[in-house]
Amino acid sequence: MIVAVTPNPAIDVTYRVGAHVPGETNRVLDVQRRPGGKGVNVARVLAALDVPVRAVLPLGGEAGRWLGSSLDIPFATVPISAENRTTVTISGDGHPTVYPEPGPEVSTEEWTAFGSVLADCVADAELLVVSGSLPRGAAPELVAEWIGLAREAGVRTLVDASGPALLAAARAGAVVKPNRAELLAATSAADEAAGATALLRLGAQLVVVSRGAEGIAAHTSSDGVFAVPAIPDVHGNPTGAGDAATAGLAAALAADRPLIEALRSAAALGAAAVLRPVAGEVDLPAYHRFLNGAPA
Amino acid sequence: MIVAVTPNPAIDVTYRVGAHVPGETNRVLDVQRRPGGKGVNVARVLAALDVPVRAVLPLGGEAGRWLGSSLDIPFATVPISAENRTTVTISGDGHPTVYPEPGPEVSTEEWTAFGSVLADCVADAELLVVSGSLPRGAAPELVAEWIGLAREAGVRTLVDASGPALLAAARAGAVVKPNRAELLAATSAADEAAGATALLRLGAQLVVVSRGAEGIAAHTSSDGVFAVPAIPDVHGNPTGAGDAATAGLAAALAADRPLIEALRSAAALGAAAVLRPVAGEVDLPAYHRFLNGAPA
Repeated sequence: MIVAVTPNPAIDVTYRVGAHVPGETNRVLDVQRRPGGKGVNVARVLAALDVPVRAVLPLGGEAGRWLGSSLDIPFATVPISAENRTTVTISGDGHPTVYPEPGPEVSTEEWTAFGSVLADCVADAELLVVSGSLPRGAAPELVAEWIGLAREAGVRTLVDASGPALLAAARAGAVVKPNRAELLAATSAADEAAGATALLRLGAQLVVVSRGAEGIAAHTSSDGVFAVPAIPDVHGNPTGAGDAATAGLAAALAADRPLIEALRSAAALGAAAVLRPVAGEVDLPAYHRFLNGAPA
Repeated sequence: MIVAVTPNPAIDVTYRVGAHVPGETNRVLDVQRRPGGKGVNVARVLAALDVPVRAVLPLGGEAGRWLGSSLDIPFATVPISAENRTTVTISGDGHPTVYPEPGPEVSTEEWTAFGSVLADCVADAELLVVSGSLPRGAAPELVAEWIGLAREAGVRTLVDASGPALLAAARAGAVVKPNRAELLAATSAADEAAGATALLRLGAQLVVVSRGAEGIAAHTSSDGVFAVPAIPDVHGNPTGAGDAATAGLAAALAADRPLIEALRSAAALGAAAVLRPVAGEVDLPAYHRFLNGAPA
């Protein structure tokens, strides 16, 4: 089983409008609501692949109640007193506009309870995945704490985070999976190789860098760099492609498959996610075609 | 007691952002959530004036649960299976951008139950107020039905609605309170006098027209037109000013005060609402100053 932590889950609301005119009233033609947050997307893709998965996430307020009743994957939760966040996306003519709420403040006591629930969950897991931002005010060291809990249970951790949380995860010895921009921003490095080396020196077990249209690469301490290209000519909705790639990587790591296979699986799943309009979903037949080298 | 119906209540969410850039991610700096809908605003202003009031509204889903737990006025509700709507307002640099959801579909059975609850509530009321839009798919004749229930209990109805619901309210003999644009749109009349005459001929007991910066007027069948000017030089947030004016009118009608006093009270309350940043609130000391003829 893979345990997927979403530190800051969200209700993802998409408003379809006609013309989108800032400064005016834009009547919403259609509303879509679904559970979101990067870890939730990862868990949903794993479930679609029939990989046993359990999501762990803090839920609070009416938004948390809605999330709990709407999740279609197994999950464990810790109740928090504050309200989970909502992210509103306006989809009309032109590029979508996104309004992400900052998220709830989670108390120290609530995070302690979260750690206990997580320790129970990782006890019989093959891998822990931590994906997405921390709620405001949460210390990046929380991620290190979760990695430590997993290590005590003999379980590796894969972290998709940015900024100080990415650095904390590297220091705590996790497999980290930033995209190239996050890698450069967190390490202040001039290029990908320098950034990856910095994270490996901090203690990261492996640094997997998603390069967008240029594919995905894994930087190791002793075996150099492995890389696979992206599936060419895939057009659609890139939201959630990174989470699908994380799911592919997680499934391969949990099954102890060779690294190059893990990267191929990640690239194929990322592309299969682009073909679906909604984050957290993948086009499974396309995924299998891509794995077998068929074009888009 | 005044009974205030909100046919389509809303969670009013305001997102404060820094720069507001369409097509990009705009991080929300601050989130405000409050119960909204025009009838809710009217009821809150009446409560602030110490006028006994009871809101009646359909509540459903997690949004309805949130609304029920957040309302700070007495209310009666009818549970509906669909989710209440949310209206998101983006407040940043420039004019606010508003995204109103269309609202739930309420079944015939749910509206029947709503009528029963309303009939109970109006039994000991001095006035019924119906304020704001109907949810999608709801027949405008519902408003006529509610006016009929009130009449059976010997209670007058004040309706602030637009389009077909405004016409239905006039036909059913209510006091109607459109703004000038709503009056002209619903009647296809060339000017306010012609529009008001059309509504009076349909059966409206009284036609009160809010004229924005030009004040407020009451058109009667037999006593001509009464008008008061707006309070000059009031600057602030006009959202909810119309609802505060409706509350002023309602309180005066319920107490059988002379029409010109009712209009003065409506104008002063509308201005006192502009001084507050939030719809459903009024600056009470300013209201009393304005009533006594003091300038803004």
